[in-house]
This record gives sequence, structure tokens and C-alpha cells, in this order.
Amino acid sequence: MPSREFVIAFDADDTLWHNETIFERTHERYREMLSRYHDAATVDRTLFATEMRNLELYGYGVKGFTLSAIETAIDLTAGKIPPSEIRRLLELGRDMLAHPVELLDGVAETLAALSPAHALLLITKGDLRDQERKVAKSGLADHFRHIEIVSEKNEPAYAAILRRHAIAPARFLMVGNSLKSDILPVLALGGAGLHIPYHLTWAHERIDTPPPPDARFYERKSIRDVPALLAAL
Amino acid sequence: MPSREFVIAFDADDTLWHNETIFERTHERYREMLSRYHDAATVDRTLFATEMRNLELYGYGVKGFTLSAIETAIDLTAGKIPPSEIRRLLELGRDMLAHPVELLDGVAETLAALSPAHALLLITKGDLRDQERKVAKSGLADHFRHIEIVSEKNEPAYAAILRRHAIAPARFLMVGNSLKSDILPVLALGGAGLHIPYHLTWAHERIDTPPPPDARFYERKSIRDVPALLAAL
Repeated sequence: MPSREFVIAFDADDTLWHNETIFERTHERYREMLSRYHDAATVDRTLFATEMRNLELYGYGVKGFTLSAIETAIDLTAGKIPPSEIRRLLELGRDMLAHPVELLDGVAETLAALSPAHALLLITKGDLRDQERKVAKSGLADHFRHIEIVSEKNEPAYAAILRRHAIAPARFLMVGNSLKSDILPVLALGGAGLHIPYHLTWAHERIDTPPPPDARFYERKSIRDVPALLAAL
Repeated sequence: MPSREFVIAFDADDTLWHNETIFERTHERYREMLSRYHDAATVDRTLFATEMRNLELYGYGVKGFTLSAIETAIDLTAGKIPPSEIRRLLELGRDMLAHPVELLDGVAETLAALSPAHALLLITKGDLRDQERKVAKSGLADHFRHIEIVSEKNEPAYAAILRRHAIAPARFLMVGNSLKSDILPVLALGGAGLHIPYHLTWAHERIDTPPPPDARFYERKSIRDVPALLAAL
């Protein structure tokens, strides 16, 4: 069974557990808070622009989001936002960090079925402590041979992980919801990519580039489809 | 030469480059900003209490510090702080993240002298992206065989690093400015610890417990003393 030799890596946020839904709930409250000043589209657009401006310094994660949300609220209200509402933004940020981890359908069973026969990796980007906390809360840690928390999921980051664990790209399958962060860089390195879309995608992760036609690119609806795909590879 | 077999790990902040001095400059501006409302001791004490309350959720680093500073400023002014000053706090946080890396005296020469004969590790805690940026800016990355950025420097974290790289504690020397984070957990695992004090120590890193009398504990004034210590071990 050649498929047994595959090393399978999973993205975490919106692949193993819900994440963007938590951000989306916070966005809804944020729009309400600023609705006296601006319409929802302006609020969304300005917050996203602030996040992109700060991304190089802040990186991904809830703390950087909270700082950018405070900055945007001050800008969009020309400094008229009351400090009590800034305090509310700090609370919303802490609520996100303390949020329970809710697994996606089929995740626990599928990882339990795969881990006896395959080396499984978890590769996620974002805030170190927040991602560690989510891994611990998920109850999934024991399924993974290695857990990699990186600051960016691009070709050099994947290349470093493959090198560190002596994994041949031909035997590497990455599973995730983001074409940009989980699939395209892995295909470019000669690995295989399985895209499992989530119903929400953060604007920064959206892309128009399709995967190259000769790449080992697959798309499925659920993590439950991974064993059948592996058997067919 | 048995000393050649030592794996030497270095802490980064306030061991290889200045860090607490940058925080201290920000603290000075913070006290000035709040001086109309409270004396410096109250400001310092309240900010530290906020940081400790948030530490579990935020972890170490500049972003968590900035969020705690905003929260404390709102609390200490009973919500009267103007949003323009909260914007100023956001700027101070970004200034810290963008700050140049200033190496401590003797660091570049000592690492260059040690790295041909010894496996060197860098072990630092804090924000992933910020620490990666500082490593890159420092120009020191090539001296290190492995760079480990962890969310906490305690016994389990050091034990995991030693296990991952198959390092025997008896041949492991950790060099750092914090007895609490760099020295005591390593001594407890049977490793050796070299304490090089920095002239400032963050309150959270201060301890009263002395190292156990039978431990391989050393104290020197400068990183320049490492080669002589190694020759004597």
C-alpha cells in the first residue's frame, strides 16, 4: 500500500476547528459599535486596510487583530469613540482568545483512523501561545507526530519543514481550507494538496490564481473524504 | 577537549541584544502620559498587575504589552483618557516592534569564536514574528544550529528541546540573563547554567530562590567570559 507512505499535514484554523466564524461574530459586533458613524462596508474595508498595513509588524492572530480594531475605531470616529467602547474591544479580543475549540464535523474520527498508519503533521500559522492553547484544547495533539507553528505559510516555510523532517515532497500531502496558504506553496514544491473549503474565507486568504493544471491538486467537501482519496492516490 | 562536546544555548532578549531598555523607555513615556492622574509607582504597579492578569491569554511580547497598557490607561483614568492618547500608545507599541536590534557588547565576536567548535542554540520566548524579526535583524542567525522560539521557558519546554535534538543534559550549557527562565529550569534538568545579569530585570523575571548548592551554576559579567568558562569546565 503505497498510500501508507504518505506524510499527511493538516492546517488547523477552519480545517480542524472553527475559526473564521469566531472572527465573523466579532466583526458583527464591531460593525454595530461603529454603525452610528459609518456603514458596514466602510467599517469592513477600513479595518481590513489597517490589518494589512500592520501585518508585517503584528503578524497573524487575535492580538494583532484587536490592536488594528482599536486603531480603526479611533480613526473612523475621528477620535470620538468613548474609552468605554475601546475597553469593550479589549474584552472582545480576550473572548476570542478564551473561546472554546469547536472541531469541524468528522475531524476526530478521521484523524483517529489515519494516525495509526500515517505520520500526521499539524502546520498552522499565527500567534504561538494562542495556537498552542487551541491544540491543547482540541484534544487532537496525540494524533500528530510533529506540530509546527509558523509565522507565515509560504514556500520557504514549507521547504524548511520538509527538510527538517526529511520528507520527500512526492510523499507529502497537505490538507487545508486556504488555497493561498495551504495548497499553492505545497504544489510549487512538488507536494500534493487537498483543498477542503470552509464556508467563510478571510479576505487576505482569497486568491484568483487557480492551481497549475499538472499539479497534484484535489478538492473535497469534508475531511471524511481523506481516507478514500489516499486509497486512490 | 571535552568542552568541545558542550551544546551551548543562548537566551536572546537582554543576553544577545538589548530589550528591557526599550520597554523601560516606553514605560517612561507611559508614566508621563498618566502623570496628571497618578504617581509613577501607582502607574507601574497597576500596569504590572494588568500584565500578570492577561499573561495566560496574551503570552509574552510587545502586542500583549500594548493591549495591557491601553487597558490600564482606561482603568487608571476612569475612562477619561482621550482616544488620541490611546492612538499614541498604539504608536509606541509599533515603535517597539520596529526598533533596531542593538547587540550587547562582545556578542558578535564571542558567537563567531564559539560557533566553529560548538553546536550553538538560540532559545527565546515571546511573540513568534517579533522574535524571528529580531533574529534576522541581528545578523547572528548563521551561528546557530537551531533556533527555538517557545511560549514559555520552563522545565517541560527545555526537556522537549533537549529530547528533540538528542542532547544529554550533562553536556548542555544554557547562557542567559534570567535566573527564572534561563537558569533554574535547566539546572533542575541536570544541565549547566551560566547567568550573565543585565542591568534591568522585568519584575516578572525576578526571583529570590538561589540556585541549589550542588548545581552546575556559574555567574559572569559578560558573554566574553564564556570561552574561558568552557575551557575550565
